[in-house]
Amino acid sequence: MIRGGAPLAPERTIGEVGERALLAHIRSRVPLGPGVVIGIGDDAALLATTPLTLVTTDSLVDGVHFRREWSPPSLLGRKALTVNLSDIAAMAGTPRFATVSLALPADVTIGFVDALYDGLLARAAETGVSVVGGNLAATTGPMVIDITLIGDAGGFVLRRKGAEDGDLVVVTGTLGSAAAGLHLLETGARLDAEGGIVTAGLWVGDASDLARCLRAQLDPAPPLAFGRALAEHALVHAAMDLSDGLSGDLATMCEASGLSAWLDPAALPIEACAAAIEKEGGRDAFSLGLHGGEDYELLLAVPPDALDALRDVAAVWDVAVTPIGAFVAGPPGVSLRFGETLRRLRPASHDHFRS
Amino acid sequence: MIRGGAPLAPERTIGEVGERALLAHIRSRVPLGPGVVIGIGDDAALLATTPLTLVTTDSLVDGVHFRREWSPPSLLGRKALTVNLSDIAAMAGTPRFATVSLALPADVTIGFVDALYDGLLARAAETGVSVVGGNLAATTGPMVIDITLIGDAGGFVLRRKGAEDGDLVVVTGTLGSAAAGLHLLETGARLDAEGGIVTAGLWVGDASDLARCLRAQLDPAPPLAFGRALAEHALVHAAMDLSDGLSGDLATMCEASGLSAWLDPAALPIEACAAAIEKEGGRDAFSLGLHGGEDYELLLAVPPDALDALRDVAAVWDVAVTPIGAFVAGPPGVSLRFGETLRRLRPASHDHFRS
Repeated sequence: MIRGGAPLAPERTIGEVGERALLAHIRSRVPLGPGVVIGIGDDAALLATTPLTLVTTDSLVDGVHFRREWSPPSLLGRKALTVNLSDIAAMAGTPRFATVSLALPADVTIGFVDALYDGLLARAAETGVSVVGGNLAATTGPMVIDITLIGDAGGFVLRRKGAEDGDLVVVTGTLGSAAAGLHLLETGARLDAEGGIVTAGLWVGDASDLARCLRAQLDPAPPLAFGRALAEHALVHAAMDLSDGLSGDLATMCEASGLSAWLDPAALPIEACAAAIEKEGGRDAFSLGLHGGEDYELLLAVPPDALDALRDVAAVWDVAVTPIGAFVAGPPGVSLRFGETLRRLRPASHDHFRS
Repeated sequence: MIRGGAPLAPERTIGEVGERALLAHIRSRVPLGPGVVIGIGDDAALLATTPLTLVTTDSLVDGVHFRREWSPPSLLGRKALTVNLSDIAAMAGTPRFATVSLALPADVTIGFVDALYDGLLARAAETGVSVVGGNLAATTGPMVIDITLIGDAGGFVLRRKGAEDGDLVVVTGTLGSAAAGLHLLETGARLDAEGGIVTAGLWVGDASDLARCLRAQLDPAPPLAFGRALAEHALVHAAMDLSDGLSGDLATMCEASGLSAWLDPAALPIEACAAAIEKEGGRDAFSLGLHGGEDYELLLAVPPDALDALRDVAAVWDVAVTPIGAFVAGPPGVSLRFGETLRRLRPASHDHFRS
């Protein structure tokens, strides 16, 4: 029920203002975007869709995927959308419509929800996404932010399966930055809503390294347009986003493709400040790169004769690409290659249920 | 990562088996349905969609919308889908694809998740819905079941707005059954997974009344096809599902339509066992009918000259329809009519944030 009147004061809690007032407040903030025939406020949204539609769902749980005290709420809103954008991009799709389902403790303030939506709506505007609906639920436990993102599929989609024997394992960007950022948060470093450093915590190294890693964790920037370019140029046999960590995600791609893969440990483009973290007694740098999750970079299976063309396209999109190994016939699984020796790798991606 | 091997034992917890094994287990259970080009197991699902697509999201939170100890998990799975089916039906759509996002405490067993999916997949099969993806997240708090349902819009959609001065307020089914069922659960009554009574708790009345109310709460059965029939025959000006309770939902429709409405208290089709609950010292019967939520019946704005045709269509679909008031020009809001006197009603639908 939408009522006119004074805007809700930011310091009030949602337990005080209630579900209906909060819903009306959110609704008043969300614009109707292109292709949205009916947006928030009816039993369902009505959308103009293409014949082939992509859909993905990803959620962030307080205390598991983020901590309220570690993340400015606007960055949290951005990230909640970004992790879904990454999935649509990894399928070479174009993101269009999002629903936002929030399970909120009663002590959450209007100011928090507003800042969350500030970030979410700004990210949506940057990426051509319309927020078309969602749900508000009370919870006695931690906050859950659950977003479903709907996208248009282009003429081609990228899949996890389809890697071929002899394809190169290629990654975009650097590995372990987000995991390094998590370590830095754990040791007291903090970022403000604009991405500036509030405090370095125990970190005594370079400030730009610190900011980069914190941003990778709190405000990831996947190569969103690159997947579509790869699909249009038919440059890869398989693709997926790196969300759980290289070791686990590559194992997933091997499983989907019915192949084995090896990695050259020396080739991994590991985050520069990981070495400093290792020196300070944190996790070792190689582990951060190999197992650290949430980089939201792309993992690609590239036929060797397409590598030069891939590099050309990557240069256009300003994306770093690094060959780090190869797919080979064999039982699904990942090995590390030391000269002529292959050492089987046990996937050690983070498993939240068992942490 | 999908591995062959022994099925997961039902008594094991998801904290023991981990996210990847649980995901593989769920994936192995979910069939690929019509229109699903790529289902569970890639970065996103790929779906064949119509030019106009409906999307809705609704979630159930343990301790707020259900209690694990009150609901057999298979009925919980059914209900989680049904509350979304109700939204698509209220817009006159045809449900097609669902994503299922679960935030689960580590102590949840494989048996529980299996039973939840038993109910969810059975309900999906009954209603032509394919489960196409979702998310698994760990939580340190209560379970959250969040479903997004995508449907095809037909040539017509029903909206909350559009009621006209003089339209009749009409509801399907009975009011207060689900709220009565909630009261009966609170007083110890329990249902088994097949809808049979395990124990009557403090209830000493008729067993069929008890079973009906418990089912209304635990396994609601909205009139799913009726909305489409109404839209095809252009018999209503506005429609929405009754999820929060008549008083609040009617106020919402008034707000959306810019009208006032009055209700005839004597006309409300209140659940029969509500009177018995009142007699036993529970909530009064009229309140249960007026404010009780979760009935998932339809609230309709019907032009008076369409009422006979509406009754004919309702008879075909075996749906009870009852005129209970009228929309009139005036500031948005709901009144009770006693003879010539209108008494303004304060919406008292349940607000979980303030409970």
